[in-house]
This record gives sequence, structure tokens and C-alpha cells, in this order.
Amino acid sequence: MKYGRAAVMVETNRVETWDVPVVAPEPGGALVRVVLGGVCGSDVHIVSGEAGSMPFPIILGHEGIGRIEQLGAGVSADYAGTPVKAGDLVYWAPIALCHRCHSCTVLDQTPCDNSTFFQHAEKPNWGSYADYAWLPNGMAFYRLPDHADPDAIAALGCALPTVLRGFEQGGPVGLGDTVVVQGAGPVGLAAVLVAAVSGAQKIIVLDHSDKRLEVAMSLGATAAISLKGSSADERKRQVADLLGPRGASVVVEAAGALPAFPEGVDLTGTHGRYIVLGLWGAIGTQPIAPRDLTIKNMKVTGATFAKPKHYYEALHLATRLQERYPLAGLVSHRVGIADANKALALVKSGEAIKPVIDPTL
Amino acid sequence: MKYGRAAVMVETNRVETWDVPVVAPEPGGALVRVVLGGVCGSDVHIVSGEAGSMPFPIILGHEGIGRIEQLGAGVSADYAGTPVKAGDLVYWAPIALCHRCHSCTVLDQTPCDNSTFFQHAEKPNWGSYADYAWLPNGMAFYRLPDHADPDAIAALGCALPTVLRGFEQGGPVGLGDTVVVQGAGPVGLAAVLVAAVSGAQKIIVLDHSDKRLEVAMSLGATAAISLKGSSADERKRQVADLLGPRGASVVVEAAGALPAFPEGVDLTGTHGRYIVLGLWGAIGTQPIAPRDLTIKNMKVTGATFAKPKHYYEALHLATRLQERYPLAGLVSHRVGIADANKALALVKSGEAIKPVIDPTL
Amino acid sequence: MKYGRAAVMVETNRVETWDVPVVAPEPGGALVRVVLGGVCGSDVHIVSGEAGSMPFPIILGHEGIGRIEQLGAGVSADYAGTPVKAGDLVYWAPIALCHRCHSCTVLDQTPCDNSTFFQHAEKPNWGSYADYAWLPNGMAFYRLPDHADPDAIAALGCALPTVLRGFEQGGPVGLGDTVVVQGAGPVGLAAVLVAAVSGAQKIIVLDHSDKRLEVAMSLGATAAISLKGSSADERKRQVADLLGPRGASVVVEAAGALPAFPEGVDLTGTHGRYIVLGLWGAIGTQPIAPRDLTIKNMKVTGATFAKPKHYYEALHLATRLQERYPLAGLVSHRVGIADANKALALVKSGEAIKPVIDPTL
Amino acid sequence: MKYGRAAVMVETNRVETWDVPVVAPEPGGALVRVVLGGVCGSDVHIVSGEAGSMPFPIILGHEGIGRIEQLGAGVSADYAGTPVKAGDLVYWAPIALCHRCHSCTVLDQTPCDNSTFFQHAEKPNWGSYADYAWLPNGMAFYRLPDHADPDAIAALGCALPTVLRGFEQGGPVGLGDTVVVQGAGPVGLAAVLVAAVSGAQKIIVLDHSDKRLEVAMSLGATAAISLKGSSADERKRQVADLLGPRGASVVVEAAGALPAFPEGVDLTGTHGRYIVLGLWGAIGTQPIAPRDLTIKNMKVTGATFAKPKHYYEALHLATRLQERYPLAGLVSHRVGIADANKALALVKSGEAIKPVIDPTL
Repeated sequence: MKYGRAAVMVETNRVETWDVPVVAPEPGGALVRVVLGGVCGSDVHIVSGEAGSMPFPIILGHEGIGRIEQLGAGVSADYAGTPVKAGDLVYWAPIALCHRCHSCTVLDQTPCDNSTFFQHAEKPNWGSYADYAWLPNGMAFYRLPDHADPDAIAALGCALPTVLRGFEQGGPVGLGDTVVVQGAGPVGLAAVLVAAVSGAQKIIVLDHSDKRLEVAMSLGATAAISLKGSSADERKRQVADLLGPRGASVVVEAAGALPAFPEGVDLTGTHGRYIVLGLWGAIGTQPIAPRDLTIKNMKVTGATFAKPKHYYEALHLATRLQERYPLAGLVSHRVGIADANKALALVKSGEAIKPVIDPTL
Repeated sequence: MKYGRAAVMVETNRVETWDVPVVAPEPGGALVRVVLGGVCGSDVHIVSGEAGSMPFPIILGHEGIGRIEQLGAGVSADYAGTPVKAGDLVYWAPIALCHRCHSCTVLDQTPCDNSTFFQHAEKPNWGSYADYAWLPNGMAFYRLPDHADPDAIAALGCALPTVLRGFEQGGPVGLGDTVVVQGAGPVGLAAVLVAAVSGAQKIIVLDHSDKRLEVAMSLGATAAISLKGSSADERKRQVADLLGPRGASVVVEAAGALPAFPEGVDLTGTHGRYIVLGLWGAIGTQPIAPRDLTIKNMKVTGATFAKPKHYYEALHLATRLQERYPLAGLVSHRVGIADANKALALVKSGEAIKPVIDPTL
Repeated sequence: MKYGRAAVMVETNRVETWDVPVVAPEPGGALVRVVLGGVCGSDVHIVSGEAGSMPFPIILGHEGIGRIEQLGAGVSADYAGTPVKAGDLVYWAPIALCHRCHSCTVLDQTPCDNSTFFQHAEKPNWGSYADYAWLPNGMAFYRLPDHADPDAIAALGCALPTVLRGFEQGGPVGLGDTVVVQGAGPVGLAAVLVAAVSGAQKIIVLDHSDKRLEVAMSLGATAAISLKGSSADERKRQVADLLGPRGASVVVEAAGALPAFPEGVDLTGTHGRYIVLGLWGAIGTQPIAPRDLTIKNMKVTGATFAKPKHYYEALHLATRLQERYPLAGLVSHRVGIADANKALALVKSGEAIKPVIDPTL
Repeated sequence: MKYGRAAVMVETNRVETWDVPVVAPEPGGALVRVVLGGVCGSDVHIVSGEAGSMPFPIILGHEGIGRIEQLGAGVSADYAGTPVKAGDLVYWAPIALCHRCHSCTVLDQTPCDNSTFFQHAEKPNWGSYADYAWLPNGMAFYRLPDHADPDAIAALGCALPTVLRGFEQGGPVGLGDTVVVQGAGPVGLAAVLVAAVSGAQKIIVLDHSDKRLEVAMSLGATAAISLKGSSADERKRQVADLLGPRGASVVVEAAGALPAFPEGVDLTGTHGRYIVLGLWGAIGTQPIAPRDLTIKNMKVTGATFAKPKHYYEALHLATRLQERYPLAGLVSHRVGIADANKALALVKSGEAIKPVIDPTL
């Protein structure tokens, strides 16, 4: 039996390095040697217990790029029909759709009713903080274009598919749109980038970190507003100064903090859309005036759980933009599997834009 | 100078009968002899001052069917191009679009930035609690089909265009939809009717009035739940019993009461839509969990201010359904102009389904 | 080894009754005892060779309702998550999606790039002109609601999902729509029914068979025009008389004959939509004026290959309507497996509205 | 009475310079001193008689930018609500909507049923080959942003609003789209530009002029294919080489020549959209196979007659892009009113990318 290393969350706030069995792929599946495992803010919430209780022990990591080690029986192409062979780089969508539930087969919607997020660490496992990822039959993976830079794809991680999913649900950004993005973490940065390449007229980003605001500007934001020392009223005035009296036609919530919600409703202009992406993990309520929704003719759309298509689109978008935008440079830290705790701490502190696990280190 | 009677709101909570000048139509306009002026819950809010301060004195009435008395210069057709002549019955959309603002010409959205709702009572005036309505150039009116019953059109009044507007914004009801309608006043009844003729699978209506629930059933609701003595939790369970675990795919807020808002968010099933129509006049906030929107992949749409198109559609829909559904029978009271106060009191008390002003009485 | 009978197309224009092995279901699959196998016009084209060459020998029948004989390992629910057990009636979607191609995972569109329509007659097989159908893992099936009448579901067969697919692609029928349906075979009848329950204002159906036109009227058409002895110009005039100068807002091609195409473009009114469903099998071109598309601001949408969702929707729609419309009565002939040739001849001659294979006969 | 010059088409193939009265604006209207009158290929068709018979004598020119000379009574803002005063530069939409027909008030669609394209040359007139344009009440005009370059707006003329209209009808270009544009005249160039700023993945342009293909590349095309000496089959192969086996997801017809139509249907990939813009003036039919539409799951959309909104969007888009793309440089010739014939000849010959009438010359 062959073994590989993996960063295993054994209980709340405890991550260890384990040796776990490396198993041949099942028919329809694939075994992948991990090249990069993205470290995501959600991982921090998972480890801290904020994201609810988990089926310990689990291998961490839901963002992965790897090299095909072995293809399962019957597999000769990726999930878009592109031929693949051992050695090819692939990007996978970590939440497999069941294709056997009402959400999947009747509505074409996510979340799927039967998604499996994690598998027991000692079972075949697709967690990406590991030497190998075992992708079950049905877990979509896509071949990287030949010239793709894995760092550019890892840079925004699952945030980019999440944003593409959000705009699928809430409607795409169009040429006339004036966009406000609440938060410049990965989801906010991805929203800025997608809005920019979709031709948005103006893109204002809000965050408390000057560094993040600077990155947002490099990805296409046209103005940045710091949350530091400003009140919601002041920010509303600043947005009005930048966008004029009609305000934002699209607001994207990528802050993950509850007070962003009523502020986002308020920042949305008449006839505008508010797309809520970051608040999936924030327990609690916020008061809003339903009258605002009617008087302003507003739409509020919550979305989460990118589909495989959004991973495909994200992969191709990032590859296409890797030279026009400084994507690869967003990968700020690169640590080995044994240093997963360090990477998580970097994300938690807000110091890092994007650490990745690199099993070769 | 010719005079006609009109019910004039001279100040908060005071409505008088005045003789006002009857003026020839302006070019592009029309002078109409009122046949029916619908009495709407909004009129009650206007008179009580709850809808904000008004430019007194104003002629009440924003729902009107009349007979063309005189057409303005250059007018030989209604706003859908159907030829009209003196004597024809018409239905008008009381909020003229300016066609010269960003909402009108760039977004094709209402509210128009320059809508004029009321005119001083002694000026040419389109208020429908009157013998005559003077429709300015640009105020859309549509000829009634030959066999149309004015009562059937007046029955749901502006609620029917409002609901059609709401489904334009929030997406139409489709064949698979399971619909919950909060409230069985005119907006709720119109929502039930539109959902029914659009082929909704199930339509549950909630109200505290048994009479209204009964009317809702006659218009196509498949189940009724009384608010009397039931808690939100009990109602949620009842809805789950009726619709199964997936819950409602569409919830329409037509209650106008603030607590309906969080209950509506709660009743909306995963992947569902919540269309907020009734709360345009309710001042105040309600706590909701933004996380619910993301986790349930929900859309919340506020809408108000029907466009002329929705009046046209409402007219033709009501005409088409006047035999299949007991629409005309919803007109519960018929009073003269001098009895406007009585009609308003009937609406306020909830006794009346739909009173109308009939100037011949 | 257990055997069951099946109607096998062994070569062009030759259908025989074979005894074929009955095989236990694979994991994820199901073995079904066929209750009804619908006989479809496509089957006639397949047998005659018009639909192209086939991988003989094949078991015929792509419309099936059956009773679960045995569930494959791991299966306890249908593809909408409804629990199932042996003995339950199910309706299956005969074209399994691969969920591993660009059409499936990136575009959510059909046709899937890897659909398998037929399997060799002696291999496990889902053809419905048989005692048993073996549904592979991934072939969606849905449990019939308890009170569903299998005849009502079989009545329109795959035409109903096809029409639902067509309206998904070309946009749904709305309350204001005036619809012309070219052809009153199963696809045309299904289009009439769906338009009717979707609230279409008027529905005109064209066919050469008085009997079919009569059935169309019973399913909700508001007028019927016979093709017998009428020219395209005369029909255009008749449609104009019925719909007024604006013409049809939606035209559905369900005729399957090439000349229907330019006539359909011509019948579509300004701002209208033309949905082409029947011509998937008609080899050849027809001249149309591209200028008509621009001047009339028209959309032409071709669609085919219903998704599993459309089978689910069709099942539930037919069940819901089985009492309001005479659906079950459309099943005009009921023959045993050994009489498949007779059923095909009935369809070919146009005598039958809908024959079905009933393995108990 | 004040007079101004105008280029008047007095009969087919005869354009003269006349002195015509300059009239004060009507209430709601505006009098504008023309700064630039764009010369459009349609003007050539109008003068040659190919566009049908015209109500001679007419002032030519439907693309105009001017400076407000005098505002009509009651006008203090443009049609998006932006304040205007004498001296401001404005861009107008030359086809006023009536807001009193079925297309306008019920469908929100163009063409409007009552559009007036031309006015007798000696009546108040909005033709732009003139010193002054008299904009009637209801003809939308929009103030140029302060830094807008009139040449950049004139560069693509009415082609840019036309393309925006086309994508409104046929669906916007999205991030994953692979686009083929047939023709690199103004409409084709505008389609390339809009696709590029909307984030299209690849944009291939086809034309017979190397110069135009070069311009298309400067506006965002990613590949150019010359029609010179190539067959439709060769072009199809070239497109396949560039886009891969799935072909184009969007094809835009901007060629205006009939054979482009079947070629465009053929170039559209499975699940693709074909948007027909250029063929509004081409009399004649072309054979296409309706089967292709169904088998390829295609949509074909014809569109024409931009709305005022598209002029507003075009104005703001061109202004926004005037530095990123060499728009102003597309204005290739600048001639006085008296040289209108010369400008028309330049367009007819294909020599000019974009001539404009400059009344100061």
C-alpha cells in the first residue's frame, strides 16, 4: 500500500499531518497528484468550528489543481469532453452533483440535495491539502489549457466560480452597470475582476484593508473606499459622489459581515440588484425595510455553491486574463502540507491575500 | 363653463363633494365621462395621511373606467393603436410616464422619475371619483373590448396591473410552480388569479378573513390557511403539509403588514422567489437572516408602479376571464360620488371586497 | 436465465418479436416491468430508415411507463429524490445525459454530446416495446404520483416533454400570447395543451385531419384551420381574421413537413417567436427571407431532445390535467408486443391518435 | 426668417443643397446646431432608391451630434434627466417613439408602429446633413459627457446602437462566448467592439476588405478572415481551426449580403445564437435547413431599429472607450454640406470607413 501526506482536521482547531493510503481510482474517477491546494477563508471557518460540526477526521482543502496520476476505467476525457491522459494538469470542482435529486434533475440548481463535502480522512479523499486527491466518479475536473499558469487559477480559488455563480443567479454585469463591491477578500476581488472584464462602467470596492483595496484596483476597480474610520452614511455619500444620484445598479456583498447587509440594500440604487454572496456563513439577522425593495424596484439574490460549469468558466477566464491582470502575483504564500496550520493562520489574520499548499515543499 | 361633481380630499381625513370645471381635452388627450371609479385601499391610506402628505385639494380615485366624451386634437386611437371614438368605453393607467427620464428612456423601468400622481382639484384632473376625468396627453387609455364587463375590470382594480408588474419583475409563474400568497385583499386575489391562469401547480392563500379566503378559492387558490389564531410556525407546518418538503417555489407578499416579510422569507423554499408587492406603504424594518437568502438560493424582488402595459394586459385578462371566474361579483358596493366617505369606510373596515363609485347614483 | 419478449427491429422495415434475457439491474440502475410502451411517429421513421441507419438489432420504444421489478444497489429514490420501492410505477427519460461533456456540464444544454439512444437488442436494454426495461445507472426515472393514470401520461408521450423543452428554449407562453400551432399530431397537441394551461389568449391549430383538429379543440385550442384544400395565403388570411392585424405572437412548428417552415415564418407576427420542433427529421432546405426576421423583430428557435426535467414536468402536468382534459382517451389503440408492426402501421397511416404497446396483451 | 443649408434628396439619385427655414423649437422640443452628421450606408441605399420610395424632398442624415441652439418651452433636461442648456452638445435618436401604439406601450418593442423617419425638407426637420436640426417634442436627445469626443461617437454612428439593440434581442455576449462577425462595415465593427468590451473569449471577423479587417482587429477582434478568394467551406474550416469543434457560440450578421445568411446559420455552433442585423435591406430569400436549427439547438434573432436607450448607451460606451480604442480615428473624411454627394460616393465605393458632414466646412 502506498501512502501520501495529508493535512487532517482531527477536531475543532486541531490540524495534523497524517499519512493516508493512496488508492487507485474507481471506474469513472481519477487519481491526481496535487500541485496546488488553495487555502480559503472557509477553511478557517471549518477549522474554528464556525461553519458547523464536521465529520472528523477530514482532509482539508476544497481548491485543487493537480496532475493526473491515473485515470479510472473508462475515462479518457475531462468533464467538458477534452481528451486527457496521465500527466495532464486538471482543476476540479470539489462538490460533486448527484444528478439524482430535484435540485439537480428538475431545477438545474445548486445546492444539490445530496452533496458530500467531505470524506473520512482515511477513505479515498479529494481534499487538496494532500499529496494526492482521489476524485470519485462524477466529480468534475477540467484540463488546464496548455499555457495556463496554475498560480493564476489558484489566485482567486473558489471565489471566482462563486462569483460567476452569483452573476448567473442575479443576472450578469452589463456595459451600463455601475457596481459596488462590499469587501475585497477573494470573493470581492473576483467580483471586481468579473465586473471589469464584463464591461462595467464603474466599479467601486469597499474594504478596511488598504492592501486589499490596492489589489482590487489592480484587478479593474475604478475607485476604492476604505471602511477604516468611515461610517455607513459617509460611505453612501462617497458612492453617490462617484456614481451620481442614481447610485449603484449592482451591489455585490462579499464582506461576510452582517452589517454589510442593510448597508448593501441601502447602497443599491433604484432599479438595482443586490447579490449576496459572502453572508452564507454569518449566523444572525439584520433589519431591513421591505418598503425599500418595492420603492426602489430592487432585486436581492442570494447565491452559493458554484456548479462545475463555473469552475470550467473560472479556469478559462483566469487563464485568459493571466497576462492582462496580475493574477498569479496574488498567491502570497506557499507552504508545505506540514505547514497547513501556518497557512490557515495567515488567512485568519488577514495578512495573506492567498496562501497555497504546495506538496513539494 | 360646465361643471361636474368630484370627491375632493381637502385635507387629511376630510373628503368633500365639489363642483369642478369640466374642461375640453388638450391635444393628444381625452375627456372621459366616468362610469366606474374603483375604491382602493391606497385611497384609504391617502385620506388618513399614512401615505404621506398630499398636494391638497385633490380629486380622489386612481382606478377608472369611462366613456369617451371628447377626444383631444389628433387622437383617433387608444394607446395600443385601436381606433376610438366618442362613446367608447376606456380604461386608463393613472400614472403617466414622462418618457424623458433615465427610468423611462434608458431602463424601461417604473417608477418613472417624474410621475405626477395628483393634480389640484380645480385644475383639469384625472381623479376617478368624479363625473368626468380629463386625461392629459400621454396618459395611456385602452378601449374595452366590445363584450367587456366594466365591473369585471373594476373588480381587482389596480391590484391586477400591480401583480402583472410584480411577475414581470420577479419572473412569471410557470407550470411547475407552487405558490403561496400572503393576504387576500385585492393584490392577493389578483396574485391568486394570475397564478391560476398561468398554470401554477398549487396556490395557497393566507388571510385572517374567512370571506376573503373563500373568494380566493373561487379565483383559483387550491388551499386556504386562516391567520386567525395560528402562529407563523403553525402556518409553516401547514404549508409544508400541502406542498411537501420543498416548500413554495414562489411566495407573493400581498399582506401589507410588516411581520409578513420575515414570514415570507421563511416560507420561500430552496431555489424559490419571493415577490414583495404589498409593503410599499409600510414604514419600518424587519429582521431577516441574509444567510437564508444564500443557503436557499433565493431571490427577493420588490416591485410597484404598474406600467401602462400592465393596465392593457389586466383589461384584456379580466375581460377574457369574466365568465370563467366570478369577477364582476367582487364589486360588493356601488355608491355615488357624494358617498365617497362611505365607500372609504367600507374598505377601511375590511367589510367590502370592492366598492366602486358610480356617478349615476 | 429469465427471458422476456421484445419487439426488435432487425433491419430496415423489419420488426420481429424476440425473447431477450432479463438482467438484474446494475448498481444505480433499475429493472422495470413495462406497463405501457408508447408508439411514436419517430418509431415509424426509425423503422422505415428515414431517421438514418440504426445499430441493428435494436429493441424499439422510447416512451415507457413501468413498474419497478428490482432496484439496483444503492437506489432508494427516483431522480427527483422521491422514495421508491419495488412495485412502484415510474416514467423514464429514455436519453440519459452523460454529465461529462461540454453540453452537459458547461452549458446545461441538450443534446448531450454522448447520448446513447439504442442498445443492441441482446444487451441490457431500455426499449419499451418489451416485457422489461433495464434502466442503466444515470437514466432518470420518476415515480408516478399515486393517483396518476398511466394512459394520461402515455397519451402525448415524448411530445409533451419535447414541447416543454421547446418553450424552455424559445421562452414560455404568457398570458397575452396568441399562438398558432402548425400540426396536430402529438407534438402539436402537446403544444396546444401547454399553451392553454399557460394562459394563452388564443390558440389556433392547423392540420389536415378533421379528427386531429377536433382533439386539439378538446385540449384547449380556440380555433382550428384545416389544411385540406386551403392555400398558405388563405390560411394566413384566416389567422389574420382570428388574431387581428398583429398576427401570432408565438408560432409552434409541429408539422414535420418542410413547407411548414416558410409558412411559419410568415405567420409569425411582428415581435413574435417561432419555435421549430417538428422539423428535426426533415432533410432539405426551404427559402426564407432574412429581411423578414429583422423587419419583424423575430426570434426563431429550434429545439429538440427533452431533458429529464421535462419528463418530470410532463409527468406531473399530465397527472394534474388528467381530469380536466380528455388525455387518457387519446390512447386510441392498445396492442401486444407481438403486434408492434400493427401499431406502427396505425401511426404511419395517420389513423391512430396514440397506440400503445401493452405487454399483457 | 432665418435660413440654414441642408442636403436635400429631391428624387432618386439626386441630392441638392437647399436653404431651408430655421424654425424655433416647439414646446418639448429643441433646436440644435449640427456639429457632425454621420454618413451611413443606409443613406446610400436611400439615395439610390434601394431602400424603397421616399417622401421627397427630404433632408438626409439620421446620425447627428449638435449643440443646443434653443430649447423648447418646458425643456431643461435631456431624455435621461440630465440638465441641459443652450450650448450643450447632444446626441439624438432620430426615430421618435410614439408611445401610443401596441409596440410602444404594450410590448416595449421597436419598431414602433408609427415611426416617422423623414419630414418634408421645407418643414421643421431633424435631418443631420444640415446647419440646424429641429428635434420635435418626443425625439430623445442626450447630453454628451463633458469630456466626450464627438468624433468618437460619430465613428460608429447608428451602427453602435443597432448592435446594442441586437444583443438586447438576441441576448448579451458573455465571458465564455466565441463570436463570429460577418462583415466589418460599421455594424460589424460595432459588434466586434461590443463583444470585446463584454469579455468575449474570441472574436473572429470576416470581410473582403483588408483595411476593414485591420480596423476590426484594432477594435478587439482576435482573428480576421478575408472573404477574398475564399469559399464558404474554407471559411468554415478556418473558423473551426480557430474556435475548435464546438464552433461559434454567437454569430452576428453584419454583412448585408444575402449569401451571408445560410453561411451564418452554418457557422453557428451547437447551442449557438445567430443575430441577424445587416439584412434588413436585402430583398430576397435564401435556402436554409430548418433541421439545422433543431439539431443544433439554435436561436436566430432578427433585430433592427435601436431604441433611444441604445443611443444613450452607445453615447456613454463610445465616450468611455474613446481612449482605449482608436474610435475617433475611424472618421476618415470630413466634408461640408454642399459636398454630401461626395461623402455618399465615398461610402458607396467602400473607400471610406466613416465620412461625416461638418457644416463648418
